[in-house]
Amino acid sequence: TPSDISTALQLGIEHSVGKLSSKHERDVLMQDFQDIDVVFFPRDGSTSTPAHHHADFTFKTYAPIAFRFFRELFGIKPQDFMISMCDKRLKEIRNPGASGSLFFLTNDDRFIIKTVQKKEAQFLQELLPGYYLNFSQNKKTLLPKFFGLYSYSTSSGQRNIRIVVMNNLLPSVYQYQVKFDLKGSTHKRKASKNEREKKCPTLKDLDFKTELPEGFGVDPTIYDSLTRTLERDVRVLRSFKIMDYSLLIGVHKLTEVSRSWSVSEADSRLRSASGGASSIDAVTATARLGRIHAYTTSGEAVMLFIGIIDILQSYRFIKKLEHTYKSILHDGDAVSVTSPGFYSERFVNFCKSSVFTKRIGKKLRYYYL
Amino acid sequence: TPSDISTALQLGIEHSVGKLSSKHERDVLMQDFQDIDVVFFPRDGSTSTPAHHHADFTFKTYAPIAFRFFRELFGIKPQDFMISMCDKRLKEIRNPGASGSLFFLTNDDRFIIKTVQKKEAQFLQELLPGYYLNFSQNKKTLLPKFFGLYSYSTSSGQRNIRIVVMNNLLPSVYQYQVKFDLKGSTHKRKASKNEREKKCPTLKDLDFKTELPEGFGVDPTIYDSLTRTLERDVRVLRSFKIMDYSLLIGVHKLTEVSRSWSVSEADSRLRSASGGASSIDAVTATARLGRIHAYTTSGEAVMLFIGIIDILQSYRFIKKLEHTYKSILHDGDAVSVTSPGFYSERFVNFCKSSVFTKRIGKKLRYYYL
Repeated sequence: TPSDISTALQLGIEHSVGKLSSKHERDVLMQDFQDIDVVFFPRDGSTSTPAHHHADFTFKTYAPIAFRFFRELFGIKPQDFMISMCDKRLKEIRNPGASGSLFFLTNDDRFIIKTVQKKEAQFLQELLPGYYLNFSQNKKTLLPKFFGLYSYSTSSGQRNIRIVVMNNLLPSVYQYQVKFDLKGSTHKRKASKNEREKKCPTLKDLDFKTELPEGFGVDPTIYDSLTRTLERDVRVLRSFKIMDYSLLIGVHKLTEVSRSWSVSEADSRLRSASGGASSIDAVTATARLGRIHAYTTSGEAVMLFIGIIDILQSYRFIKKLEHTYKSILHDGDAVSVTSPGFYSERFVNFCKSSVFTKRIGKKLRYYYL
Repeated sequence: TPSDISTALQLGIEHSVGKLSSKHERDVLMQDFQDIDVVFFPRDGSTSTPAHHHADFTFKTYAPIAFRFFRELFGIKPQDFMISMCDKRLKEIRNPGASGSLFFLTNDDRFIIKTVQKKEAQFLQELLPGYYLNFSQNKKTLLPKFFGLYSYSTSSGQRNIRIVVMNNLLPSVYQYQVKFDLKGSTHKRKASKNEREKKCPTLKDLDFKTELPEGFGVDPTIYDSLTRTLERDVRVLRSFKIMDYSLLIGVHKLTEVSRSWSVSEADSRLRSASGGASSIDAVTATARLGRIHAYTTSGEAVMLFIGIIDILQSYRFIKKLEHTYKSILHDGDAVSVTSPGFYSERFVNFCKSSVFTKRIGKKLRYYYL
């Protein structure tokens, strides 16, 4: 069961972070990106692993030194990471996509754990040097923040699970009226009736055009910074032949009252939720990178939570066949699965012309700059 | 002749930098490290290249975008780089090593141009991502600063030359009493009689032990910072299986008078030598990273110019055979050609225990921190 998996993961991660903290801090080298740490957890325990109620399993930590370095860059201390990941039960969350992945959220709302396929895990490892290169140049990046890559496999071979740990784009202390998952494509990009009836539905490109024909109005300075960041991020994705990623937008409505206090209020709730950890400022600072104030077509003030998601399905591995197949069935222009260059251009153009528009108005406090 | 070569190089570099400056600035991507720009220079000129007095040649610029980015990191503007490299005749300098390379110095004393073998050029390209990774973490690095990698080949195939552009470790506005080229090895590490008779000889490990039995005394804070930097640099070299590199030390004696003013005086001479370029502060700032104040065994105050040199002869490519051969002939401990791990440890230990020692004394102004 998912709950079984999550407690086994916690055992593995606790051990991995603990082991790592005994290692001296040092610079990251190129081969750290390829490194894998393997630990066997027999049911009855061993000199270095505790006894447990699962079947014997092997836990692998990919690129431990490199990910420690990434966590540091994002202001996450080893102790805080361990507490977030291991101290309390992980919450399973309903699969937001159609990928068949399991999703867990840490109790303090900071991290998302997602199961990934073998190809995706391999691809993430390949991606790491470029991912580092991008982050070191482009601090405002909206690409997913990866904090760890692990695998859990039973000795019987029955179960083999790989997970990534990522930032939680949509902190649950905020309420979202609606979310958008946008690709810049029109083919099948409409939420199902089922989805639309949810309390906070995830809508798609065609829905967006209907709901917000004029897009989100944002301050011109923010608009320029945001679209520039999107262009830079997408250039990186394109260079890795990645496509089929989405722009995720969580829309939090600012009421007359909340306009003045909701943000700092929610921040302090977030702070207390995570136990007042000292690194919380770094976390909220990171989180704020993906937040902007905007206006809807009808003039409502909203706060948007923005990030690029689903970047691990590499074109090279998965999409080539799919493309060959689909391009026969449909008009290439409308299919979201096509070439990385075409995909990235359409994506950015859609964001620049339809999702966001420049709007000069009352300046609210905004967080994206 | 060398002079022929240098003017052809200048043609190529001028064209390359000019072409690059027309390209939009953007983030460096992983594949930029592999990129090669190829331009043909026919004798009679073409629509994009000038006529010249050399035989037809092809000029290649390796990783143009990545090196532009490195130059920027080191505070070198495109315009300044072009002026330094191309405006005046390059000075040929006498080969300081036994490598058979040609060396040129730019007229403004800022850059050294060195011919390298094909294997070395290939190796530098392989090294670039790790080199970047190191620089982004370790700003004080004493590794060579590479600003460009080019090749020049005649159509006849008679001539095929690869060059790297590097920082000039020893600005000629300072006078050096002596230079040391240290490896931490004892085998054959003694300057020839011929060398010792020069005005500013380059001495080696055994000479160092005789001349400075107590090493250079440096302030404890500087000592810690310097040895830490050497450890970090050497870890990078080791990770690439590099060995046989040297620590180069240029010793500039501080006289009673010069103690108080020589440094700033020389800096301002350096400034005027390079035409008062606005980026000179960045250059001297970079240069200063490799400068420390120290005392000789006899108590003389000196300024040391320090850097690690000769890192491109990779163990993997060149040294394996040599090792097999030499380790039979000599005691492994004393041979400088052995394994990268052993080499790096011996190198650092020698620097930490014999080359530099902690000395608490009058604090002079020092530049390394």
